[in-house]
Amino acid sequence: MNPRINHQIRLAARPVGLPQASDWQFTEEPLRDLQDGEILIRTIYLSLDPAMRGWMNEGKSYIRPVAIGEVMRAGGIGQVVESKSPRFKAGDYVSGGTGVQEYWIGDANDKHAAFYPVSPKLAALPKFLNALGMPGMTAYFGLLDVGQPKAGETVVVSGAAGAVGQTVGQVAKQKGCRVVGIAGGKEKCDFVVKELGFDACIDYKNNSVKEGLKTHCPNGVDIYFDNVGGDILDTVLTRINLKARIIICGAISQYNNTTPVKGPANYLSLLVNRARMEGIVVFDYASRYAEAVAEMGAWMQQGQFHTREDIVQGLEQFPQALLMLFEGKNFGKLILQVAQE
Amino acid sequence: MNPRINHQIRLAARPVGLPQASDWQFTEEPLRDLQDGEILIRTIYLSLDPAMRGWMNEGKSYIRPVAIGEVMRAGGIGQVVESKSPRFKAGDYVSGGTGVQEYWIGDANDKHAAFYPVSPKLAALPKFLNALGMPGMTAYFGLLDVGQPKAGETVVVSGAAGAVGQTVGQVAKQKGCRVVGIAGGKEKCDFVVKELGFDACIDYKNNSVKEGLKTHCPNGVDIYFDNVGGDILDTVLTRINLKARIIICGAISQYNNTTPVKGPANYLSLLVNRARMEGIVVFDYASRYAEAVAEMGAWMQQGQFHTREDIVQGLEQFPQALLMLFEGKNFGKLILQVAQE
Repeated sequence: MNPRINHQIRLAARPVGLPQASDWQFTEEPLRDLQDGEILIRTIYLSLDPAMRGWMNEGKSYIRPVAIGEVMRAGGIGQVVESKSPRFKAGDYVSGGTGVQEYWIGDANDKHAAFYPVSPKLAALPKFLNALGMPGMTAYFGLLDVGQPKAGETVVVSGAAGAVGQTVGQVAKQKGCRVVGIAGGKEKCDFVVKELGFDACIDYKNNSVKEGLKTHCPNGVDIYFDNVGGDILDTVLTRINLKARIIICGAISQYNNTTPVKGPANYLSLLVNRARMEGIVVFDYASRYAEAVAEMGAWMQQGQFHTREDIVQGLEQFPQALLMLFEGKNFGKLILQVAQE
Repeated sequence: MNPRINHQIRLAARPVGLPQASDWQFTEEPLRDLQDGEILIRTIYLSLDPAMRGWMNEGKSYIRPVAIGEVMRAGGIGQVVESKSPRFKAGDYVSGGTGVQEYWIGDANDKHAAFYPVSPKLAALPKFLNALGMPGMTAYFGLLDVGQPKAGETVVVSGAAGAVGQTVGQVAKQKGCRVVGIAGGKEKCDFVVKELGFDACIDYKNNSVKEGLKTHCPNGVDIYFDNVGGDILDTVLTRINLKARIIICGAISQYNNTTPVKGPANYLSLLVNRARMEGIVVFDYASRYAEAVAEMGAWMQQGQFHTREDIVQGLEQFPQALLMLFEGKNFGKLILQVAQE
């Protein structure tokens, strides 16, 4: 019998509005022995994402809800501690659906967890939850495949300092676009302009987004990559160009609503401008992740592509850390470190 | 001096909500003599369209607003009475921007009026304001170019008995789709199913659209052609399939709002379903109208394509007739007959 104890955080109740302490249950259980074909993974880093809020709701979505009593779903980076599978060996680093727990145990080929190897030689492990992980893949394929940017076009991205926004803006710059971010606070805006090379950034907490768009997008908006929804989406809709593309990646401003979601009142701007609004779900591009990792990895190695992570320590901090996303308190991709590398 | 008097209806004020009698001004003026290159057209039929409501508002749209004091913009079918242009001769029938007046006078090549010849031998003149005119072109290119229907897919269209809806549904049937209309009242629903060949029609005035979609779209909705906006758009969004296409053609439910437009609260269904919502403006397809007229004209001649017009008599009826659109009182393409053929 494996003597180790696995600490876990489970969904205790479906939240109404922002998740409360009472929506979580802390559990522990001893680790069982491995069966043939199984692996034991020690979780090191967990990805904290706005999408998690959606997984906590009942009802049909692009993925099934987390069940009450189930370990909270999360993507993570871990290290294989023990393996009875030829696919991985002890010491390997992997990325996949570890869940919010210290250890993951199960079939090495589990299709939900979908573990794949990552190399700490290529990049620091947290990067594999950022530009080289799901947020990066979302940004890359959402922008390039759905948005179809052309050099010289103006791209606006909300949540610009966040995990997806960072990558959207930098990929758009690489493709020759003018890039304007929207972020909350001067520090984040300075970061995306000075460190990531965006052309401008609108601080929505202290300035008018409408005025900012007039100033920084003198030729209008060709692509808007929306992570936030709500009033910002509505405002950008008033500034789009003919044949603009709006990529709907998320709507963090609406995820904790206890009233109905605020639909974009200015959606008829799509008609006036023959524009389109289209959703992206990253899993659709799984077969092409390698392309994105190769291209962005090369930019990183050339020093042309930067990322920032905001790493919180300790599994038990998960409930509070998650709330940082909805309060805009994280600065960079939010990651929970559960164990030392 | 030409002794004839031209009766006109001009925009007197910008309406708040539904247009009122006081928003219109009836004027008359004697017709001047033609100059070289000009034509005089006697208006016979005028097209009454929901889009007219938008032209009456101030502010940027896909076309400039009608100015206060200006003859109300309208597309019409007329006959050339006198010509000093080699392009048209007296007796020719034309389609173009006659405006809401008995006569149009001006340069035969006026780019706003954009007159082109129509042949009463090909089809009855009112058809050139319906399937063979702007509503038909809107339906044809919106469905085929923006919607990209594939045989076997399910197409839903609102305003199904209206000018655009009739054509959308019949073109979709020709392309092998399952077609479900949404219309107000049993009579309209019977018409689109029995006379136009739709597979089903949901009577939104007497039945639940949500239940109707469940019943008649057992495989979900692949394409939604939206003429109405509001609650119906929101309801259809809950039933769309992966990679669905929503064509935003209009939002008649919202045009007379005195409160802000109701945006589609369920727009995040676009994300969940990787679907897109895209606007269409018919003028973008001007260079391809001939394709559409040829294909739909052929279907008509084979007895496979039907249209219905609702013709109101008398120029002075314009203000009241326009309101029929917003009350759903027209049954078929609404046309105002200003003079005898």
